[in-house]
Amino acid sequence: MRQATNSLSVATRGKGLNEITAAVADWLGDVGIETGLLTVFCRHTSASLIIQENADPDVRIDLEAYFEMIAPEDPGRYVHGMEGPDDMPAHIRTALTSSSLSIPVIDGRMALGTWQGIYLFEHRARPHRREVVLHLIGE
Amino acid sequence: MRQATNSLSVATRGKGLNEITAAVADWLGDVGIETGLLTVFCRHTSASLIIQENADPDVRIDLEAYFEMIAPEDPGRYVHGMEGPDDMPAHIRTALTSSSLSIPVIDGRMALGTWQGIYLFEHRARPHRREVVLHLIGE
Amino acid sequence: MRQATNSLSVATRGKGLNEITAAVADWLGDVGIETGLLTVFCRHTSASLIIQENADPDVRIDLEAYFEMIAPEDPGRYVHGMEGPDDMPAHIRTALTSSSLSIPVIDGRMALGTWQGIYLFEHRARPHRREVVLHLIGE
Repeated sequence: MRQATNSLSVATRGKGLNEITAAVADWLGDVGIETGLLTVFCRHTSASLIIQENADPDVRIDLEAYFEMIAPEDPGRYVHGMEGPDDMPAHIRTALTSSSLSIPVIDGRMALGTWQGIYLFEHRARPHRREVVLHLIGE
Repeated sequence: MRQATNSLSVATRGKGLNEITAAVADWLGDVGIETGLLTVFCRHTSASLIIQENADPDVRIDLEAYFEMIAPEDPGRYVHGMEGPDDMPAHIRTALTSSSLSIPVIDGRMALGTWQGIYLFEHRARPHRREVVLHLIGE
Repeated sequence: MRQATNSLSVATRGKGLNEITAAVADWLGDVGIETGLLTVFCRHTSASLIIQENADPDVRIDLEAYFEMIAPEDPGRYVHGMEGPDDMPAHIRTALTSSSLSIPVIDGRMALGTWQGIYLFEHRARPHRREVVLHLIGE
């Protein structure tokens, strides 16, 4: 049994979903573990991770619009405003999605379904550089 | 240290919570690992996993009604509609819940609390066959 | 490769976020694993876990208010009421956040970002004693 870790740097363009499936899969191929457990971890409180459909881009548009609707930028709603009107909604959207994902590895590949992609969900309005930590254990 | 993997096939009857605790526990008993980490992973983007109360069935009714309310079928709201009016709400409900669960195994059993059950949450209106991947590492 | 498990008892004072980062880090230091995977698991269906900003306390106030707003105590909304008006909202808030967190361990420490803290989110109105199970695998 062995382990490997890595860190991905994801440059976002402001709010929205950024697919990182290929970058994760590439690293997995380099490590060469056949059976194991992959953990994807986002080191931020205003960006998060989700697994979503990677086929129709409209799904991403609707998801982004949905989170904009349920946690809107509206300074009157929030006490915490010193980092900008988009910061508190970003924390809420992070709480409603995930900071970590756990994905089994079987036959050297993530056990994702046909339509599943891994996305970093940027919740801040401006571009950010986000760090995603990968951990893999197996053999 | 060793690993085991498995795949559960869950036949759903349309929207709602399907308890899979017993199926997972049965497999765990077969594998016979005393201390470890169990990962439960849903290979779909319109069904998800949650841990919820397994005592009063009304909890499931209220949970289903809640997600119906916050992510309703309403074609006017969504761009993505080609897979039916229940598809985009299904993706949203998946994003708001979990694609993976991580459960410690202690003394050969999942460390679930007394009232915790593991549920596959079907978000599509029609019955589906869903695949849940299990991964266990420990000794 | 080795494993360690532990159980934290968290005394809550009713609804709100309780930071447990230091307690988890202390145990991690005792175990002395350099590289690994930490799992934090909440054994309840009316309390949950989130990773959130640990800098400005106003973030916690806004998060608590947000979940109060989207899953209010309102007996008319819910079928399940026998455990009190705060119980069904507690189950919903648990479903919307997380029962488990997976955090890579690198150089003997959790790979948390600068502003990330681990919180037990109590969703019941009255104080409770909550059990959080920790599992660590690595070397």
